Amino acid sequence: MPASGWGQLFTHMIIVQKYGGTSVADLDRIRNVASRIKATRDAGNKVVVVVSARAGVTNRLLADAKTLDPHPDSRELDMLASVGEQETIALTAIALHSLGVPAVSRTGAQVGIHTDSEFTKARIVDITGGDLNKQLDEGKVVIVAGFQGVTEDGHVTTLGRGGSDLSAIAIAKAVNADLCQIYTDVDGVYTADPRQVPGARKLNEISYDEMLELASLGSKVMQARSVEFAKKHGVVFEVRNSMNNNPGTIVKEEVASMEDVVVRGVAADKNQTKVVILGLHDQPGTAARLFTALAKANVNVDMIVQNVGRDGVANVTFTVPSDDAYKAEKAVEKISAELGPRVKFMTDRVAKVSVVGIGMRSHSGVAADLFTAFAEAGINIQLISTSEIKISVAVEVDKADDAVRVAHAAFAL
Amino acid sequence: MPASGWGQLFTHMIIVQKYGGTSVADLDRIRNVASRIKATRDAGNKVVVVVSARAGVTNRLLADAKTLDPHPDSRELDMLASVGEQETIALTAIALHSLGVPAVSRTGAQVGIHTDSEFTKARIVDITGGDLNKQLDEGKVVIVAGFQGVTEDGHVTTLGRGGSDLSAIAIAKAVNADLCQIYTDVDGVYTADPRQVPGARKLNEISYDEMLELASLGSKVMQARSVEFAKKHGVVFEVRNSMNNNPGTIVKEEVASMEDVVVRGVAADKNQTKVVILGLHDQPGTAARLFTALAKANVNVDMIVQNVGRDGVANVTFTVPSDDAYKAEKAVEKISAELGPRVKFMTDRVAKVSVVGIGMRSHSGVAADLFTAFAEAGINIQLISTSEIKISVAVEVDKADDAVRVAHAAFAL
Repeated sequence: MPASGWGQLFTHMIIVQKYGGTSVADLDRIRNVASRIKATRDAGNKVVVVVSARAGVTNRLLADAKTLDPHPDSRELDMLASVGEQETIALTAIALHSLGVPAVSRTGAQVGIHTDSEFTKARIVDITGGDLNKQLDEGKVVIVAGFQGVTEDGHVTTLGRGGSDLSAIAIAKAVNADLCQIYTDVDGVYTADPRQVPGARKLNEISYDEMLELASLGSKVMQARSVEFAKKHGVVFEVRNSMNNNPGTIVKEEVASMEDVVVRGVAADKNQTKVVILGLHDQPGTAARLFTALAKANVNVDMIVQNVGRDGVANVTFTVPSDDAYKAEKAVEKISAELGPRVKFMTDRVAKVSVVGIGMRSHSGVAADLFTAFAEAGINIQLISTSEIKISVAVEVDKADDAVRVAHAAFAL
Repeated sequence: MPASGWGQLFTHMIIVQKYGGTSVADLDRIRNVASRIKATRDAGNKVVVVVSARAGVTNRLLADAKTLDPHPDSRELDMLASVGEQETIALTAIALHSLGVPAVSRTGAQVGIHTDSEFTKARIVDITGGDLNKQLDEGKVVIVAGFQGVTEDGHVTTLGRGGSDLSAIAIAKAVNADLCQIYTDVDGVYTADPRQVPGARKLNEISYDEMLELASLGSKVMQARSVEFAKKHGVVFEVRNSMNNNPGTIVKEEVASMEDVVVRGVAADKNQTKVVILGLHDQPGTAARLFTALAKANVNVDMIVQNVGRDGVANVTFTVPSDDAYKAEKAVEKISAELGPRVKFMTDRVAKVSVVGIGMRSHSGVAADLFTAFAEAGINIQLISTSEIKISVAVEVDKADDAVRVAHAAFAL
């Protein structure tokens, strides 16, 4: 099927649609969602719908829990939080009935979303689908609670951030769906954040790997784990807007033609902190000691650069999410004696700007073009790290928006 | 165990406690409930707690459903309504954790409350208890969602009015509890409604049959079905106040000493309508036709009196709950031609006043004493019906409070 076909009317397909919390935030929006579902079914498709809790519901419940106990038990939190989605599935099914559409709701447990026992951030172990195919064959729309699963022992679990997207993709796999639509409040994945770059363009398609790099860069469209799951199981999905009928962005395995586009998109993460450590022993094992200590402190280290200086000392610079900066400082302080007698360190907020595209693999000179463009625009590059399909640079936070625009223009996105 | 012992501190017992929606209406009340549970457990008991939804939660959800569809599907209503209890079990478990009490929540399905598929008013088929005994043996308090069960096919059901009481009594049976405490907002069962009769006295104990008669009279303490279930399975329970430590009323199988008290209590139901039908064929089958028609119309007929008049016609008078009066009129209208050529009927609001007591079985003259007392007080009796342990009379609505006071005084309650 050509990419242009995805935005058209489909028929005789099995379609999984996922609607997030803002799309079902109140009864009017639930009615709106019900109308979209009806249109999809009336066109002759079998439809499974995955919904989140109504916006605000889960947060209110979790606030109640924290009022009772500042550190509530995670199993009980899942018992509590999972009701949010259970409300939405019933209400959505009832809204469909009022439109004359046969529909039935199912909890995560009822469609056999089996998880491990890591409450509040459970991982899907397998998914049976329960009686989904039977219900679809009987002409019913099935409304499934996203975000939740069940352990082998019958305990309710939740899947953590982005859990409903993951539910939708897992269910698309279980029913062997032709199409999985992730409805959100934007039209799809863009070449850059449209609020930063007025000329940003919606992409018609993107590969899993490109999407993963963008997701890990803080592009808010989807969590990396859902994209990883889709990639692993070959689930093609579309990110699209629940408030209009514009075609969205198809996310799928790369095809040869994708390499014609060298750079797919540009993204910025302004919430990074650079940690510079000076005067480390230039001895084998010093870096290992440092990063082991950071890992133990649960600090998520991103870019790393090491220079050997004079006098047998080395300098190391790395970036961490700013939320982890304090933990990182404490971890370094704790082992500073092991790192060297005159270790000094300093931290500074930075922005990470990245260009992503699988075309980079076969096109040389992307880094050179990027650095040239930055130099001409007077943007100083503090750190560089690269992967096969991504080039990231750390720049001053104040220069981040400029840097994104410059990169966007440089690659004619 | 003597009756006076029930109000004392228990130890080494298995105790089931049920708290209704007003007892867990907000976080402060949930904390209060948690403290009571802790005290019971600290005294050395194993405790299972059954809770309702927080007051208002279920009604809000059902209102949402009715906004979407005036006649929402009953399966989806149960999917929706059951979240109310699921919230409370998690919050109560978390409140107990904050007091250092090990506790774990369980849904109706998780403790194996198996029901038929009559959604919104399911009947319990059997109850396995799940891992309740294992959790109790590990020293944990188990918090179970009342009002809900699960069908053989894994669909969530709710048990209808008074469902949480029924859950508690069923669980008391499943764990072979020594004591089942139904916490409510009154101190127990009274000889009459204390708002009507200042001298009304709380009963220390009452038999299942007496409680059933009082429940069916509209005494709001408990639904008849829970009492019936307790009677059938021999579950002794106590009705008591969640806001104080007063001993409540023990409900149990009758014992010989109970017959010393001739009349246990007096109750009034002011919400009755009397239907008088004049001019029926005095032929076999006419009454059958009438009451079959009423049964088909789902009219709940209570007291029935038939007189044969002159000229081969009969008069029938019966009472129905006032909510059913319109349905009853329509049903009678529909078949009036079959009942006789000159059938006339009229309706009138009445109050039903009843005295209840198993002692009546062995004490004669109760009816005579009651009618004498009413006559002396100038209260006119419109209808009379009696059972082994109950005498009911219909009186003018305006005379109901008087009648209750007179009866209460007549039997020195």
